[in-house]
Amino acid sequence: MTTVAADPKTVLEQYDAVRSYTETLAAPLSHEDQTAQSMADVSPTKWHRAHVTWFFETFVLADHEAGFAPFQDTYWFLFNSYYESLGPRYARPERGVITRPGAHDVGVYRRNVDDRLRDLVAGLDDGTLHKLRPTLELGFHHEQQHQELLLMDIKHVLSRNPLQPAYAGEPRPRCEPDELGWVDVEGGLVEVGHDGDGFAFDNEQPRHRQWLEPYRIADRLVTNAEWLEFMADGGYERHELWLSDGWGRVRSEGWQAPLYWTQHDGTWFEHTLHGTWPVNPGLPVSHVSCYEADAYATWAGKRLPTEAEWEHAVVADGQADAVHSAGNLADRQSFHPAPASAAPAGGRIRQVYGDCWEWTSSAYLPYPGFHPPAGAIGEYNGKFMSDQMVLRGGCALTPPGHARATYRNFFPHGARWALTGVRLADGGAPTAGHRDTAVAG
Amino acid sequence: MTTVAADPKTVLEQYDAVRSYTETLAAPLSHEDQTAQSMADVSPTKWHRAHVTWFFETFVLADHEAGFAPFQDTYWFLFNSYYESLGPRYARPERGVITRPGAHDVGVYRRNVDDRLRDLVAGLDDGTLHKLRPTLELGFHHEQQHQELLLMDIKHVLSRNPLQPAYAGEPRPRCEPDELGWVDVEGGLVEVGHDGDGFAFDNEQPRHRQWLEPYRIADRLVTNAEWLEFMADGGYERHELWLSDGWGRVRSEGWQAPLYWTQHDGTWFEHTLHGTWPVNPGLPVSHVSCYEADAYATWAGKRLPTEAEWEHAVVADGQADAVHSAGNLADRQSFHPAPASAAPAGGRIRQVYGDCWEWTSSAYLPYPGFHPPAGAIGEYNGKFMSDQMVLRGGCALTPPGHARATYRNFFPHGARWALTGVRLADGGAPTAGHRDTAVAG
Amino acid sequence: MTTVAADPKTVLEQYDAVRSYTETLAAPLSHEDQTAQSMADVSPTKWHRAHVTWFFETFVLADHEAGFAPFQDTYWFLFNSYYESLGPRYARPERGVITRPGAHDVGVYRRNVDDRLRDLVAGLDDGTLHKLRPTLELGFHHEQQHQELLLMDIKHVLSRNPLQPAYAGEPRPRCEPDELGWVDVEGGLVEVGHDGDGFAFDNEQPRHRQWLEPYRIADRLVTNAEWLEFMADGGYERHELWLSDGWGRVRSEGWQAPLYWTQHDGTWFEHTLHGTWPVNPGLPVSHVSCYEADAYATWAGKRLPTEAEWEHAVVADGQADAVHSAGNLADRQSFHPAPASAAPAGGRIRQVYGDCWEWTSSAYLPYPGFHPPAGAIGEYNGKFMSDQMVLRGGCALTPPGHARATYRNFFPHGARWALTGVRLADGGAPTAGHRDTAVAG
Amino acid sequence: MTTVAADPKTVLEQYDAVRSYTETLAAPLSHEDQTAQSMADVSPTKWHRAHVTWFFETFVLADHEAGFAPFQDTYWFLFNSYYESLGPRYARPERGVITRPGAHDVGVYRRNVDDRLRDLVAGLDDGTLHKLRPTLELGFHHEQQHQELLLMDIKHVLSRNPLQPAYAGEPRPRCEPDELGWVDVEGGLVEVGHDGDGFAFDNEQPRHRQWLEPYRIADRLVTNAEWLEFMADGGYERHELWLSDGWGRVRSEGWQAPLYWTQHDGTWFEHTLHGTWPVNPGLPVSHVSCYEADAYATWAGKRLPTEAEWEHAVVADGQADAVHSAGNLADRQSFHPAPASAAPAGGRIRQVYGDCWEWTSSAYLPYPGFHPPAGAIGEYNGKFMSDQMVLRGGCALTPPGHARATYRNFFPHGARWALTGVRLADGGAPTAGHRDTAVAG
Repeated sequence: MTTVAADPKTVLEQYDAVRSYTETLAAPLSHEDQTAQSMADVSPTKWHRAHVTWFFETFVLADHEAGFAPFQDTYWFLFNSYYESLGPRYARPERGVITRPGAHDVGVYRRNVDDRLRDLVAGLDDGTLHKLRPTLELGFHHEQQHQELLLMDIKHVLSRNPLQPAYAGEPRPRCEPDELGWVDVEGGLVEVGHDGDGFAFDNEQPRHRQWLEPYRIADRLVTNAEWLEFMADGGYERHELWLSDGWGRVRSEGWQAPLYWTQHDGTWFEHTLHGTWPVNPGLPVSHVSCYEADAYATWAGKRLPTEAEWEHAVVADGQADAVHSAGNLADRQSFHPAPASAAPAGGRIRQVYGDCWEWTSSAYLPYPGFHPPAGAIGEYNGKFMSDQMVLRGGCALTPPGHARATYRNFFPHGARWALTGVRLADGGAPTAGHRDTAVAG
Repeated sequence: MTTVAADPKTVLEQYDAVRSYTETLAAPLSHEDQTAQSMADVSPTKWHRAHVTWFFETFVLADHEAGFAPFQDTYWFLFNSYYESLGPRYARPERGVITRPGAHDVGVYRRNVDDRLRDLVAGLDDGTLHKLRPTLELGFHHEQQHQELLLMDIKHVLSRNPLQPAYAGEPRPRCEPDELGWVDVEGGLVEVGHDGDGFAFDNEQPRHRQWLEPYRIADRLVTNAEWLEFMADGGYERHELWLSDGWGRVRSEGWQAPLYWTQHDGTWFEHTLHGTWPVNPGLPVSHVSCYEADAYATWAGKRLPTEAEWEHAVVADGQADAVHSAGNLADRQSFHPAPASAAPAGGRIRQVYGDCWEWTSSAYLPYPGFHPPAGAIGEYNGKFMSDQMVLRGGCALTPPGHARATYRNFFPHGARWALTGVRLADGGAPTAGHRDTAVAG
Repeated sequence: MTTVAADPKTVLEQYDAVRSYTETLAAPLSHEDQTAQSMADVSPTKWHRAHVTWFFETFVLADHEAGFAPFQDTYWFLFNSYYESLGPRYARPERGVITRPGAHDVGVYRRNVDDRLRDLVAGLDDGTLHKLRPTLELGFHHEQQHQELLLMDIKHVLSRNPLQPAYAGEPRPRCEPDELGWVDVEGGLVEVGHDGDGFAFDNEQPRHRQWLEPYRIADRLVTNAEWLEFMADGGYERHELWLSDGWGRVRSEGWQAPLYWTQHDGTWFEHTLHGTWPVNPGLPVSHVSCYEADAYATWAGKRLPTEAEWEHAVVADGQADAVHSAGNLADRQSFHPAPASAAPAGGRIRQVYGDCWEWTSSAYLPYPGFHPPAGAIGEYNGKFMSDQMVLRGGCALTPPGHARATYRNFFPHGARWALTGVRLADGGAPTAGHRDTAVAG
Repeated sequence: MTTVAADPKTVLEQYDAVRSYTETLAAPLSHEDQTAQSMADVSPTKWHRAHVTWFFETFVLADHEAGFAPFQDTYWFLFNSYYESLGPRYARPERGVITRPGAHDVGVYRRNVDDRLRDLVAGLDDGTLHKLRPTLELGFHHEQQHQELLLMDIKHVLSRNPLQPAYAGEPRPRCEPDELGWVDVEGGLVEVGHDGDGFAFDNEQPRHRQWLEPYRIADRLVTNAEWLEFMADGGYERHELWLSDGWGRVRSEGWQAPLYWTQHDGTWFEHTLHGTWPVNPGLPVSHVSCYEADAYATWAGKRLPTEAEWEHAVVADGQADAVHSAGNLADRQSFHPAPASAAPAGGRIRQVYGDCWEWTSSAYLPYPGFHPPAGAIGEYNGKFMSDQMVLRGGCALTPPGHARATYRNFFPHGARWALTGVRLADGGAPTAGHRDTAVAG
């Protein structure tokens, strides 16, 4: 879904593909499943289905449909997520109280907007379509983001149920970790950020220069087996491994393992979208916070990569585009990270896009020269640039074609319900030698 | 439903009547409606439907069914409300997160327990049935309590939805208040509490003597019209009318009117189970806390009755049994308090059972000599005897035959989501004369 | 201090006695001690010293001093406790932040008001003095209440300090419990409440009739030794002994013993105003909440007395006036409950006034016919009549002459920092016989 | 205080100078003032005085004094700030409850440690002194940090008092803002961080290379006059100027102006250490959070500088060392930011060290290659590297000689009680041209 086509027919095929994938993801869920909200960060499935529809109604139909009127005035209020410019909105932590419209009614709303949008696009002249393309494109990518969130959120909802329900699919067979390798990267004055060809969110731009000392990056993610070693070595009991706020969370929330792990009779089990199963040693560890990722790296004598190091290494490795890791993506129907395939002879970076969003050591801040677009659309990314950390890559729940090397995902330090994992880095320190270098400026 | 019959056939007819009324009440609600929990005090509809079933499974089947096994082990945990003796239970404020079993599955559970209970009762000899009758009877009254709660709870859930949805039925036509009359009661050494004939909860016993000075009691409830006068006279702005904790709630929660009232363009509207309608002046005010009831009484230069005064007056008025006020009860399908009918010539007390639970000035405390029964059943009432106030009568949501003059309902001082109203009292102060009385003891 | 005298000279002697006792109590405390507030319920010592002064300035000087002007406008705001009628006031939980006026400045304020009040009273004619007497009297008793609170509060402040500081005095020598006896009381139609001779607070009135079935009351308080038995028998681990809200506090606050008890190497120690010492088995248990008192009574197969039972038994025992238990009162300089003296032959009630405030099973509610006085003074007692329990008697911190049999102290169910204890009762249930009695009214 | 001397005599002169300055700062405060804690972030004055003493006792005496024993075991527990490695410690938000040791006792503790440390240092051979120097040096700078905090904290304590008390000194005379100028900086591959000559905290190291595009930086801080324009233009009402979390704070905490501003009769007043005075238009705005600084910059069409931009510009301007801005430092006894002096002909950067800590747009994260030292000392800076922002420069409360260009101060985004201000930056965006540049790596 990197670029929206130029002709109405292809645009509408792309639209239908995105829209129907949302409904496919919701299909295994009962009306009750689609209604519940298990914490403020989580939204009900039917809210996701309605909100992405509201996005097209608000940002496409409202401006371009002749004689536009909202499908329902109240939906305008109910399904606005966080756009202050569009007026008051229903309180986020209360989304689970909204039983009507029900899941069925949301389907009616979706079809209504689909019909109207198809009518609109089919009748557009080339110039208007060209003007509308960026908004349509944003709507497609926006809906893909919510497809991923829908799965993360329902995973959390189901995890709170003592019946241990499953969403769909089968767990991966037990596997052992493949050996960890390291990829050396030279660094220097590199460029990071999106160059503007094809779709990218505003926060990936502008492309700009950054200086990197030589470093190396792990060729696969940290595994459950390795995480069990960390735990066995007192990882959750040794304050010296932790950031102060992270240690505070360990104590106040009783963290002893990743979010969805529970121990029965000495064995660790993991809640997944496929039900609850023994922790699989060869899979990447998932649902750890940035505090945990950082503590693990400290314990391992390593560190997390910066977002620039991550992006530069992946691009240099020829994986700028998510389509390159199709192996994992095709496998996505299992909704769980896959084991690292055997390391290729050339030493390439594995598990880049289809397994876990990877915590970096970079705070989510604007790139030099960043300016959000004007209007409500400008609230999309920029206003969240405080107290969050950047994650790179993609995960087993990311829709096909949604990820790329410059993509900047972000969550707070303590978030655990997203499908997050850990890749280590090393090196990157200034060498003694550079002190003699003449400094510009 | 005052007494359970002695023969299996009639017992099962009574069982079926109670059980099917629950399903009748749930019928207008979608699966989504039945899932939501709008605050910790509120339970989802399908939770009520399952919990009352669990009650029969736990307290009847578990002890008497040959080869008993629970329908589902996890239900044991999910649908226990507050019985500590029965082990750990699912956290009350999290009931809205449980999407499975869904509304349909709860129906399956209900039918399973119904079938098993019918098999059990049909095969009982007279002696065992006799022994089982108190528990069955408690189960019937327990389910009736939850029928009332189910309606109070879904009313709250729907009130949070900006779509202003209705549950069912039609609003009452606009009416004006009938004149308020007073009934004089002589008092003296009276008896209060249930005498043990027919069903009563443990907390209504033992019947005991209490001294009452002469007093009088209003012959109808306070109306919306009167409440609007209170508001117009600064009722919610004058601290001197309020208990200190009540004034604290007025300030911290911004109370300006009863719970479900909202003002649009100068007119007050009320959310009801029939949708949102202009406040109807002739109906009793409802959904006010005990703090508000007390402030109103202070403003009116009156007071709330004690529970003994209420009970004694109603019994003396010949209305010991709810069946006497059939006029209101037949009308209950409207799920809203009714206007006071014209005052009868003889000056009887009106609106006793079928309109609003009536706040008294009595704290919910054990009667002299009260002892809860042994075992888990003993947790039914006694352990809640702190920081709650007694309400008497019944309300438009109370199932037919459930109420009686000795019934002690109870809620915290600040509760507003129950269908509560206000009846005034006056007098009751010691007279100068009695100082000369020789005091016994 | 039961009655204020009729002549200025004696009035001022009474005034000086009350006022100087406050300063005597504050004398052992450093300026830092007098400043801290350890929780919202606790007030700093220097705040108490200033607030009681503000009371005389506000309710006596402001209305009667010629050319009255407050000592400092801001003090008016700072030292108002809870009188809404007197305008906004400084937030209670923030009292510990007020470092100025300091302890020395508060002394200056006290002397200024003392001088002005002496000038005023000395110059009053008989008629005006007569009119002023009730307010002066209230001011004396108000200051005595704060003398008691000052000690309870500083006890809490010092308890939070790991240095285990003492206030003053010496601990009582170790002693063993005296045997518990029971006093039988006949009951009947008794009178309770203050009859208006001598000083009483508004909430002790009007005197009124109440019916009591025969009961008996313990002749001494529950001891530390008995409480240790309760603990050893799982008192804090058995939910069936507790009110539901009480059990909630046990779990959420981790109660395992009375407030000031800590265990070291298997021995229980108690923080007292004399420092931290091993728990003394023969002394009354103190600093337990009403929940704990109730759970203990349940465990012991007994109950707490109602306030009417307590008052009637004590009056019938000839101890209507605190001066009767001078034995304990003379001992008060030790600031700790005393052991029960040997039971007298006649079986009188011991430890009535000078040891611990005694929890009753009565909610703090208005007596029949109670009306608070008009104006700000009316906020003294009545507005707190919700969600509190009545305590009777007095304690080792109560100033001499302050207590009496009709005195109604009150605290919330969960309060533990007040010097509270437990006296058991039994009987009081209606007897089968009375069912045949013709009921009046 | 940049470097500790090599001979015992000079070292002890330096020690005495630092230590006596703390006592000088505490001198105007009463014992009550020194005891209060107005929020969890604030510590009582006497706690600061004791904690810095504990630091020398713990990190110097404990390891080097023959026959070392702590002055008081409990002080070890009471005056540990956050060193997990040194065992449990008294809860930070409870520091205001500790009335003993009092202010006088803390002085005794200080003199005891001073005497012992002087004895120790006087007797050291050169080698041991050399080994001890880094710890002594850290102790000096640590005490200086607490000198600054002591003033920020007491300012907050006094601000909560309606008496509007002053600490000391006189307010600055009213002045008007000087014109704002801009300093252009070329950027390029620059070096930032401390090079290890002279004292620096661990977090300022290692010195490393960073790429900067050309930018410009304001030559003075934003003034109160400019902030009033921002307010008049709806700065606190326009969501589009704010980060999402910042807007949340504006709404939830009711921010309408900087922390210590209050409006009376249309005029804004500011609480300062010299009392409450009308806002002085020519002084730098102070006590604004990073959210406010960011919103202001957005409103002004500018941005905050990164920490690298700030440091590089200041060093390039020849102000690497705080001693260069002696003009302001000499003026520090007024404890309030000074107006910007007239801009020098050469266009140098003004108000660098002695006015307000300046928010940057950089998150507080480790420099490439940063490793905290081993042991408890390693907890000094590194463990706080999450969810905080870097501030640069120094402020009117910073002790003489404490600041330098590489110094990294840090506070959370929402902190307002520190003496913080705003300097704008501009430019720094990648230019179109660089796309053609061959990229290294």
